[in-house]
Amino acid sequence: MPKRLTPDEYAAGVLSGNRVLLSRAITLVESTLPSDQVLAHAVMEQVLPHVGKSVRVGITGVPGVGKSTFIEAFGNYLLEQHGKKLAVLAIDPTSQRTGGSILGDKTRMETLSIHQNAYIRPSPAGKTLGGVARSTRESILLCEAAGFDVIFVETVGVGQSETAVHEMVDFFLLLMLAGAGDELQGIKKGIMEMADAIAITKADGPNLTPATSAQAEYQSALHLFPLGASKWSPKVTVCSAYEKSGLGDIWDSVTEYVQLTQQNGYFHQRRQEQNLHWLRHSIRQQLEERFYQHPAVQAQWETVAGQVTQGQKSPFAAAAELFGLLS
Amino acid sequence: MPKRLTPDEYAAGVLSGNRVLLSRAITLVESTLPSDQVLAHAVMEQVLPHVGKSVRVGITGVPGVGKSTFIEAFGNYLLEQHGKKLAVLAIDPTSQRTGGSILGDKTRMETLSIHQNAYIRPSPAGKTLGGVARSTRESILLCEAAGFDVIFVETVGVGQSETAVHEMVDFFLLLMLAGAGDELQGIKKGIMEMADAIAITKADGPNLTPATSAQAEYQSALHLFPLGASKWSPKVTVCSAYEKSGLGDIWDSVTEYVQLTQQNGYFHQRRQEQNLHWLRHSIRQQLEERFYQHPAVQAQWETVAGQVTQGQKSPFAAAAELFGLLS
Repeated sequence: MPKRLTPDEYAAGVLSGNRVLLSRAITLVESTLPSDQVLAHAVMEQVLPHVGKSVRVGITGVPGVGKSTFIEAFGNYLLEQHGKKLAVLAIDPTSQRTGGSILGDKTRMETLSIHQNAYIRPSPAGKTLGGVARSTRESILLCEAAGFDVIFVETVGVGQSETAVHEMVDFFLLLMLAGAGDELQGIKKGIMEMADAIAITKADGPNLTPATSAQAEYQSALHLFPLGASKWSPKVTVCSAYEKSGLGDIWDSVTEYVQLTQQNGYFHQRRQEQNLHWLRHSIRQQLEERFYQHPAVQAQWETVAGQVTQGQKSPFAAAAELFGLLS
Repeated sequence: MPKRLTPDEYAAGVLSGNRVLLSRAITLVESTLPSDQVLAHAVMEQVLPHVGKSVRVGITGVPGVGKSTFIEAFGNYLLEQHGKKLAVLAIDPTSQRTGGSILGDKTRMETLSIHQNAYIRPSPAGKTLGGVARSTRESILLCEAAGFDVIFVETVGVGQSETAVHEMVDFFLLLMLAGAGDELQGIKKGIMEMADAIAITKADGPNLTPATSAQAEYQSALHLFPLGASKWSPKVTVCSAYEKSGLGDIWDSVTEYVQLTQQNGYFHQRRQEQNLHWLRHSIRQQLEERFYQHPAVQAQWETVAGQVTQGQKSPFAAAAELFGLLS
């Protein structure tokens, strides 16, 4: 590993759009070494006045929906048609890189990964969801400081990570496949509830007709949900990465959403709430980490948890007992 | 308030089925006075070997669904047709007792409230959800120790309390009204996902036909959800508290569920998991309470939270700063 720089050097490098220094700064926020964390905090403080100017888009969908192919096509569309600078980050704490379904396998985004206005960063390996969420959130800010104006945060639509992504993006896009009636299978209901837009992928050739039916079906399903605080009514579109069709419709949804919520104040308010959410979340995580790793708690945990599980001790009395060990 | 008893006296009273002492023991677990809590823990330890023999049924539904009337009819059915002893508890942290939608207004369960084999306990006033959840969970155990073999835990189907109730019962019953197509409005999707049974209420007279259609609609909606670990396939029934019809079908669902899950081990396993859940939950609550009420944190909180909200400070750096105040 190259020698460490000063916070000023990292910050200046990131702000000038230097990709090598951007990557090294991200590596720094991903590190769990206490000395790296101190340095990372100092870098973040310096770049914070220069962040916030991108549109942050969460993208999710179950494996098989064609997420990488979609991101490649949609990303190239934004670069070429709208002159955007795009950063793509991934949240995938569970991936062992075997399925290749997420960004780890950069070759799945061949043209995007070599484009001068695109930056692709895979999820750090071997991290917990909490660790990935934390570093991804700071990576978004670093990418913004480096001048990227659209940020994709990709996640796999089967676990807990969608909620974490939802809490760090402005717009949440759910990719779905047209299927046979029971399309809702496999995707958690709560994820549909978070979506600001649904795009039915692979809508080409013989798939176009079922995709269009699915579009109508999802659109009426989404109408069952009451409008949220954003006052945005989620859109359902169809697209094909192969034919490069429908990509403009999706981007239109994003820009309409941003326009609406910037006008009604929700956009700014939500980002503020997200900041506070991550403060509380981070406090909770550190509190629990300190408690469960305390030697006195570790020594008694199995016994007490066993008694509680078996109904021999009340959970509330047991908690009080464990706290008694600390004082 | 009558003078305090010893833990032995409370426990002996509860175990003998003395209602006055049961009520006083519940008041004790509801108390937030530290000295009451120590006493409550001692009482709970004594009754714990005698609990666990009831079926715990969570009952929820939006206001207007006829919850009190349903519980009155269903409760009387269990008392009269099955010789059960029934306790009814309520979780409703938000209620100011003005709407009268929850148990506070005992007159809404006139016959049940005076039946010798029924015990009705309203939700404690002015408590947080955490406080109500904790005391309700211990109240369930006290009622079981007092010999009640069916426990209803009632909640309003519009907030966060359903999740708390779901974590303390064996069987979760959702009451719904037949409406016009968009019945799902107003009820959170996640609540349907928790339901072990749905009962369409007020299925009498001209309502019977729409209720039966709604039954079919919900039954097919529930089939979209994959079977959970219980292997139970949720049932949808119709009922009328007015005509006292359909109550046997609901009870059949409960007993079938209990039989299935006791055979496949899920019933016991889930209760154990619930115990552990409440231990972790209680620890988290106490950790956060101690942290946020720490004088050093309180002195700095508004400043730091303001900086984080405005994006002037990273949430993670701010959390580290607050922890620095404690050491």
